[in-house]
Amino acid sequence: MKDLSEQIQSLCRRAKDSSRLLAELSPKTIDCGLIAIGEELFSKKHEILEANEKDVDNAKKANLSPALIDRLYLGEKRFGDLLKALEDIVYLPSPLGEVIEEWKRPNGLLIKKIRVPIGLIGIIYESRPNVTVDSSALCLKSGNAVILRGGTEAFNTNCALVDSIHAGLRKARIVEDAVLLVPTTDRQSIPLLCSQQGLIDLLIPRGGKNLIETVVNHAKIPVIKHSQGICHVYVHCDASFDKALSIVLNAKCQRPAVCNAMETLLIDEKIAPDFLPLVVNELQKRGVELRGDQNCLNIMGDRLILADEEDWSTEYLDLILSIKIVKNLQEAIDHIRKHGSNHSDAIVTEDSSAAEAFLHKIDSAAVYWNASTRFTDGFEFGFGAEIGISTDKIHARGPMGLKELTTYKYIVYGNGQIRT
Amino acid sequence: MKDLSEQIQSLCRRAKDSSRLLAELSPKTIDCGLIAIGEELFSKKHEILEANEKDVDNAKKANLSPALIDRLYLGEKRFGDLLKALEDIVYLPSPLGEVIEEWKRPNGLLIKKIRVPIGLIGIIYESRPNVTVDSSALCLKSGNAVILRGGTEAFNTNCALVDSIHAGLRKARIVEDAVLLVPTTDRQSIPLLCSQQGLIDLLIPRGGKNLIETVVNHAKIPVIKHSQGICHVYVHCDASFDKALSIVLNAKCQRPAVCNAMETLLIDEKIAPDFLPLVVNELQKRGVELRGDQNCLNIMGDRLILADEEDWSTEYLDLILSIKIVKNLQEAIDHIRKHGSNHSDAIVTEDSSAAEAFLHKIDSAAVYWNASTRFTDGFEFGFGAEIGISTDKIHARGPMGLKELTTYKYIVYGNGQIRT
Repeated sequence: MKDLSEQIQSLCRRAKDSSRLLAELSPKTIDCGLIAIGEELFSKKHEILEANEKDVDNAKKANLSPALIDRLYLGEKRFGDLLKALEDIVYLPSPLGEVIEEWKRPNGLLIKKIRVPIGLIGIIYESRPNVTVDSSALCLKSGNAVILRGGTEAFNTNCALVDSIHAGLRKARIVEDAVLLVPTTDRQSIPLLCSQQGLIDLLIPRGGKNLIETVVNHAKIPVIKHSQGICHVYVHCDASFDKALSIVLNAKCQRPAVCNAMETLLIDEKIAPDFLPLVVNELQKRGVELRGDQNCLNIMGDRLILADEEDWSTEYLDLILSIKIVKNLQEAIDHIRKHGSNHSDAIVTEDSSAAEAFLHKIDSAAVYWNASTRFTDGFEFGFGAEIGISTDKIHARGPMGLKELTTYKYIVYGNGQIRT
Repeated sequence: MKDLSEQIQSLCRRAKDSSRLLAELSPKTIDCGLIAIGEELFSKKHEILEANEKDVDNAKKANLSPALIDRLYLGEKRFGDLLKALEDIVYLPSPLGEVIEEWKRPNGLLIKKIRVPIGLIGIIYESRPNVTVDSSALCLKSGNAVILRGGTEAFNTNCALVDSIHAGLRKARIVEDAVLLVPTTDRQSIPLLCSQQGLIDLLIPRGGKNLIETVVNHAKIPVIKHSQGICHVYVHCDASFDKALSIVLNAKCQRPAVCNAMETLLIDEKIAPDFLPLVVNELQKRGVELRGDQNCLNIMGDRLILADEEDWSTEYLDLILSIKIVKNLQEAIDHIRKHGSNHSDAIVTEDSSAAEAFLHKIDSAAVYWNASTRFTDGFEFGFGAEIGISTDKIHARGPMGLKELTTYKYIVYGNGQIRT
């Protein structure tokens, strides 16, 4: 235990030291590094995919769930996507050095608020190995060093990926320690990472509830959570049924396993007798299991299961949907406030004052009027990349792109000013 | 213990509920509330000062330090300052509702990034009772509810102040629970506040090292630390002696007990034989105790005490200064990186390339060229107010004004868009 603790601390110290060298590089040098990383990954494709096969085999032997094995699997196609994503990051503008604000004080001091890297970022994540390359590229591009603690089941893949990342950094003459992988699958490494005050500047946990809770419970350094999305669509009494139907189907079915998918549908009681049958038909055609409140069952009979209290606060991440009939806008807002996770919520209505009330009263990272919750995404927002979707309110909220991986400092120019 | 835990949770729930009502108020209504609070405080001045006398008496009986008793003492003059500070906050522009960015996506979605309140902020602080009014006013002005945990020794004063705040809120018909004081001096209330996930959105601890550590060690919610400042002034070999002398004296002597005061002076070895005697004379005239490295002693003999390793990492908050002679710019940077606290650091030089290197390589909230570190302050920066000075890099860095007490949300306007 002492050994591991010392090992993690020394790893973080190396990464922190490298963050200072990294902060002095030009954006162009960093881009060259990213290109070199892409070349090295490409040339080591077979080794990486072999390492991944080993992980997949182990996962099968350990009887891990098919969903997890699918997330773990890399393969030719996903490897290509990973390289493409890396290339896209190269061509994004660097967020660094931007003068965010600049002003002169009456005493002549010139104050510039400048965008700078955060320093050392710790990413703690689960099975998907593309996160290893994605996170490294985004952290490097924003001038940050990164320490990665990937999923145990992806350990061989991650080691192979980070080997190539190091080769790329070497080629571009960038300090290799700027990207470090925790070289153990010991679960104790997570609490140890969480207590590296003064070395790690920010922790970003990406994964399931247990992972997030472990990090939050142990963290003595700032954390930006990428936690669950219990997203709602509220179909208001003045909704266009066409828009409502297409938004509901999209928000639930297009990709049910992601955090911006809808988990609960709220329907205004004035239109429920007409809209509910329509939407139930279409959802059931697509294989969605429906859990409704008593009012839904009164209309639709046993085509829906009766939802229990827990359903309203459950992130299914699956083709399951809870449906509730609400009296009015206020009841919809109250329900979302009580059960939502402040991620993404939508209202469908043609009534602009109802929409404005919803948009302003719902305290979620993204609120939508007549659009699908599925748009909460760095690419869909136009950021060109994302390291994830923050469910916190501090520093970054919603999709996190390159800007959100930076901080600022004040540079103050004087000519001898003193305070009186 | 169970009782206290339930009491704190119920208090936070009331404050959180009120934060939603608060978020719906217009800036004008909030300003009326602040004015009413000022009127109530003014009319209850005698009761408040009496409560403060009781606290001061208790502190004397308990043999608390004169410095602490001084911070605790309110009195006519400071009470007037407190009212003036409140009035100033009323006249600051509201940060709320600002459209920070706005753009249209190719699919027609209009995305607005809007400045909104954070929600419920917990302020944990020590003796100075003006923080009670200051923090309440800044949180209200930025649309946030606040839960206050003031110093044990100021309990009677804080109760009296919050009574007037409640009377003011009542008068302005604003929910009273928007400002709540933890009604106990039980130290267990601090860890309990630190674990109110889902209720408190942000904790701001303001105080000594022990307080900050307690909060950091227990926090399961975001924290923005207001921790120590080990600030440096580096006098470069190309410094103007006039500027250097006046900046050094100001940074050390103008108000030594605050976090932006200089704690360590670094002098380039090329000018040390000439500059050190000058600055030692002037500092000693002002009663500053000097602790130098061996090189300083070689020049000045026993006019300085020999500094030990601990001195370089000590925040004296007093008329004490450590002085080190460094070989060059790089050694100054290395020293600050090793011993500094990323708060405020200054270089004095007429050489712009040395200055630029220092300003960019030192990773502190504020870096100065030819100006005193004492300017790191919300008022001096022109923010019109400050809730403190963040020593963190996440969300807010350096002086925190009203803007830094807000977050943002994305409001997305569509006409039926779905994701494909």
